[in-house]
Amino acid sequence: MAALTNRRQLRIEWGQCDPAGIVFYPQYLMIFDSCTGHLFARIGHSALEMREKFGIIGMPLVEAGARFLLPCRFDDEITVESGVEEWGRSSFTVRHRIIKGDKLAVEGFEKRVWAGADPAKPGAIKPQKIPAEIIAALSAD
Amino acid sequence: MAALTNRRQLRIEWGQCDPAGIVFYPQYLMIFDSCTGHLFARIGHSALEMREKFGIIGMPLVEAGARFLLPCRFDDEITVESGVEEWGRSSFTVRHRIIKGDKLAVEGFEKRVWAGADPAKPGAIKPQKIPAEIIAALSAD
Amino acid sequence: MAALTNRRQLRIEWGQCDPAGIVFYPQYLMIFDSCTGHLFARIGHSALEMREKFGIIGMPLVEAGARFLLPCRFDDEITVESGVEEWGRSSFTVRHRIIKGDKLAVEGFEKRVWAGADPAKPGAIKPQKIPAEIIAALSAD
Amino acid sequence: MAALTNRRQLRIEWGQCDPAGIVFYPQYLMIFDSCTGHLFARIGHSALEMREKFGIIGMPLVEAGARFLLPCRFDDEITVESGVEEWGRSSFTVRHRIIKGDKLAVEGFEKRVWAGADPAKPGAIKPQKIPAEIIAALSAD
Repeated sequence: MAALTNRRQLRIEWGQCDPAGIVFYPQYLMIFDSCTGHLFARIGHSALEMREKFGIIGMPLVEAGARFLLPCRFDDEITVESGVEEWGRSSFTVRHRIIKGDKLAVEGFEKRVWAGADPAKPGAIKPQKIPAEIIAALSAD
Repeated sequence: MAALTNRRQLRIEWGQCDPAGIVFYPQYLMIFDSCTGHLFARIGHSALEMREKFGIIGMPLVEAGARFLLPCRFDDEITVESGVEEWGRSSFTVRHRIIKGDKLAVEGFEKRVWAGADPAKPGAIKPQKIPAEIIAALSAD
Repeated sequence: MAALTNRRQLRIEWGQCDPAGIVFYPQYLMIFDSCTGHLFARIGHSALEMREKFGIIGMPLVEAGARFLLPCRFDDEITVESGVEEWGRSSFTVRHRIIKGDKLAVEGFEKRVWAGADPAKPGAIKPQKIPAEIIAALSAD
Repeated sequence: MAALTNRRQLRIEWGQCDPAGIVFYPQYLMIFDSCTGHLFARIGHSALEMREKFGIIGMPLVEAGARFLLPCRFDDEITVESGVEEWGRSSFTVRHRIIKGDKLAVEGFEKRVWAGADPAKPGAIKPQKIPAEIIAALSAD
């Protein structure tokens, strides 16, 4: 089952780069986080609406990682491709690929949990089953 | 009435600097925000405790500004001096001075509101009278 | 002489907001910095091309400030209006207005210097006269 | 051969947290980056001195990753333990563990390259053999 892939064109900002003139690496993870939001918006669920509609309080991270293949510099145009490539019962993994020109510059992932409030512990979260309609919408390409 | 001045020694981080090799200017405001927290901690109120003890939900900004006199670079040691220089009924202005060597590098201010929850409007804030003990503690030098 | 105004539609990101659920204020200055870049791009000069074409090494900040009138929250759509409102010989002031719905949420400014390398001091910058074509292009509305 | 472990006490800042009240995850990677700098400073090499002494232009990232076990909140005190756990010829892997109270909250790594300028390609970098004294200093505990 292929993943729906969302593509965004971005331009590297001055404030994302370090004294070596390249993107300061945690900024790539900020891009990932933003692109996950855009992926869900693509299927019609803004981050806030999704929280309300499905009774979740967020999609906290379990794990994240990235490999840096080519440096990106200020003013570079990049394309970020994002899609969910693995579905668990209550967790899922978003893959992100950052393309510069026709080359892969960065690839990474975010493993997140579909999380509601824990009724037994105020302030705590509890993983919930991911709704079938979310999986279906993000799987169709 | 002199302001209590809190001094912090900091070292400029790689990720705070831009491709020109100098601090990306919004990072100075992040330093200001952090140093305001340290100023209140100096008088015995961690940010969280203060919220609970005085029934406020925060100290949101009304205005902020900075003048940049000398660039700071990666690995520079700086001293940040912070103190409240103006008190209103429910607002106050924190002055920050960033010293590099023996020279003033950046000076700025944050005008903040002592804010509680607005009982009449859920989700909104309402300015509150600043407790006299807070003013006293931050005025003694 | 009216200022050319560039308008950008942005959406507040999760990572720009703080535990109070509103934009962490230094993030507004990051938005300002980015929007100044977009303003110059609007007149055909990407930040990098501008550096090369006019022999400058950047537009470092002399001063910046902002007033915060209404909080912006995650997922809010905002419009940022940016234009140069004052021209000095080698400095200029960009005004930014952030509109949410039909209300002004934040207004601020950046005073910047048109700066080249100082031939007399390696590593130092020297203010330069702003080219007439830059002023003309940013003044036409 | 045991790794020299550097320990830093940090307090979570307001601006590092998101609307869920927990650390916005890319901020952990910023902490990692900073702690790697402190690890090298511990053996007597500030980041800048190291660049000059050993003729490298930096230690760019090849890969990074983190697992998030417990959320950290504003004002939490954390201890970050950092040490180099794998040495290649020109690459090395720094492990970071973030402890809150007596529990592991985050663990992650940065794989970095010991990189000099590429004499054959201006602007490009070239991996270099890591000096034995660096490996020795970071291995003694």
